[in-house]
Amino acid sequence: MSFITESSPCKDYYWMGKAIQLAQKGRYTTPPNPNVGCVIVDSRQKCVGTGYHVQAGTPHAEVHALNQAGGRAKGATAYVTLEPCSHFGRTPPCADALIQAGIARVVVAMTDPNPLVSGQGIAKLQQAGIKVVSDVMAAQAAELNTGYIKRMMQGKPFVTVKLATSVDGKIALANGESQWITGPEARNDVHRHRAACSAILTGSGTVLKDNPSLLVRRDEAKIHDYPLADIRQPLRVVVDSKGIIPAHSQLLCDGYPTLIAAANPAESLAGADIEVIPNAEGRKVCLENLLVVLGERQLNHIWVEAGPGLTGALFQAGLVDELIVYQAPVILGDKAISMVNTPDFTELNQACSLSLKQLRQVGNDIKMTFSVTA
Amino acid sequence: MSFITESSPCKDYYWMGKAIQLAQKGRYTTPPNPNVGCVIVDSRQKCVGTGYHVQAGTPHAEVHALNQAGGRAKGATAYVTLEPCSHFGRTPPCADALIQAGIARVVVAMTDPNPLVSGQGIAKLQQAGIKVVSDVMAAQAAELNTGYIKRMMQGKPFVTVKLATSVDGKIALANGESQWITGPEARNDVHRHRAACSAILTGSGTVLKDNPSLLVRRDEAKIHDYPLADIRQPLRVVVDSKGIIPAHSQLLCDGYPTLIAAANPAESLAGADIEVIPNAEGRKVCLENLLVVLGERQLNHIWVEAGPGLTGALFQAGLVDELIVYQAPVILGDKAISMVNTPDFTELNQACSLSLKQLRQVGNDIKMTFSVTA
Repeated sequence: MSFITESSPCKDYYWMGKAIQLAQKGRYTTPPNPNVGCVIVDSRQKCVGTGYHVQAGTPHAEVHALNQAGGRAKGATAYVTLEPCSHFGRTPPCADALIQAGIARVVVAMTDPNPLVSGQGIAKLQQAGIKVVSDVMAAQAAELNTGYIKRMMQGKPFVTVKLATSVDGKIALANGESQWITGPEARNDVHRHRAACSAILTGSGTVLKDNPSLLVRRDEAKIHDYPLADIRQPLRVVVDSKGIIPAHSQLLCDGYPTLIAAANPAESLAGADIEVIPNAEGRKVCLENLLVVLGERQLNHIWVEAGPGLTGALFQAGLVDELIVYQAPVILGDKAISMVNTPDFTELNQACSLSLKQLRQVGNDIKMTFSVTA
Repeated sequence: MSFITESSPCKDYYWMGKAIQLAQKGRYTTPPNPNVGCVIVDSRQKCVGTGYHVQAGTPHAEVHALNQAGGRAKGATAYVTLEPCSHFGRTPPCADALIQAGIARVVVAMTDPNPLVSGQGIAKLQQAGIKVVSDVMAAQAAELNTGYIKRMMQGKPFVTVKLATSVDGKIALANGESQWITGPEARNDVHRHRAACSAILTGSGTVLKDNPSLLVRRDEAKIHDYPLADIRQPLRVVVDSKGIIPAHSQLLCDGYPTLIAAANPAESLAGADIEVIPNAEGRKVCLENLLVVLGERQLNHIWVEAGPGLTGALFQAGLVDELIVYQAPVILGDKAISMVNTPDFTELNQACSLSLKQLRQVGNDIKMTFSVTA
């Protein structure tokens, strides 16, 4: 595709930026579908329709925008953050809707990695005589859907590990005391990440120690533009190799779904949603296969809130894509509990290497976002 | 003092900003003297003289600026980042020089905390009929001389602890391997901090393990505007309670000064510069008294590069003013060595609380500057 079009590329970037902003409005509710935004602009550069995808099974972004535009869609340009679909899923193909509305030109940020679509949506538009420009703000559009893209391309979800630590990398005192190391702003931010993920992963140790709900709490998340009346609660996933978490654990009793991944499931959890995924030795859950199972369950993005053992095992298995550390301005000392358990490295090149993507202050804490380099 | 003057306060801030920039040029060479900058501006708002203090025993900032201004100083305004001195030290009083040059108005950023000057310089100028405005950019001017100010007011130097750690707060692998956790830009920055401090404090453990020189290396510091031909080397101070560092240690043999603080000094170090400063039990150095001794030796700012033991002891004794952490994007794991040794805290409020002053990236590392709250 080429940038040389009858429109100025500047205008294309401007409108695609708007479409990306729209797509972000769906970030808490679209899973397992991707976030998509659409803007329709007429020949006088007037916006005649906007839309974004809210929830799987409901209309796609393009349909909302076309409905708003009505007859003004004829001869107009549609900006879409992801290639329009060409297949019948739970809704009819958006490529057909764009063609029928008389759209003259479509600007696409990125092709859909979904093998049911990839390139075919664009081909269908071109066959109907529509001019198509793609790869406009592709990197920014990909950021909207890191989980969806990884699942489509690798069959496994994108894994973000979250840790709340002191400046010296400790998550709790030796006696386990850890409440409120980080401040309220960091905790609010964590709830927004929970709200955006597909599933929250934890370990049996955390369930035994804290008995957490791991639910998204509206008053903690402080989301002012949530597009649905009820909060979508991500699936809770507990790695419980030996089947030791009690049936009366909060996350098994509150009515929201929880999946238990076990190597040797306990009979007491007979009514629960259990996947038996033993590793080669049969005593622990195979984390790699767990991710495949979660991918098969259409989970795009896994948010890990676990102790140093499970966190370390995920790092050691090379299964972490992203690390977010909320670091509080406090020193807990060498006796306190370290954030990640690893083998006893003897050379620095055995250590896990990261790459800083984002650095900012959240209240009195620092939020560091790293991508994990292999 | 009042801001209501015949000149606009805006202009006063502009010129004081220039004077502060000038003062900073002396930051590597003025100890034990403070950093001071001076700008002389005539009635048409033309700068007719600038100067900054370079080195103790050489002319003060005001004298350089007055020399440059010559006859144009008559009726002009002098901007000085610190109250002009009124006493005969190694050079004659600057207040007298300003009066003799016919300066009509003096704008001072802050009064001098030196009891030999405090307020008397300003009084002398006013008695000579000069209008004086003070407290213009006082906070920024105080930042130039945190060490000098603390020493003048408390008799003890300002203490900055530097640590280079992983994201999980480790300074080395369990086997001691620690070379190059942080990148070259962070190491360069450390050398510039060394170059600006009065003394570098370390412990016997670090000397035994690494045999460091702790000298400022010109190629590492990369200072492009160093005002002298030779690098001023800060005093090295080694806390060596039991007198165990060998006489052939690099920092005892390289010809630059090193002070050993001991509780029970070894006879083998008979020729060295030793202060015997035992604590109540007599087996360790009293760190509090060590700081008093360092203050008496006119050391303004101590830069600590030590292991977790001495660092932790300084924190526990409440003697740290500032903590600078260079954090590399790597995870060393729970078996690695933690950055600060402390007692086994049982409640979070026993932990050492910090306040973030500055956050920035240095190469691939993060530099965090904290003030230590009591």
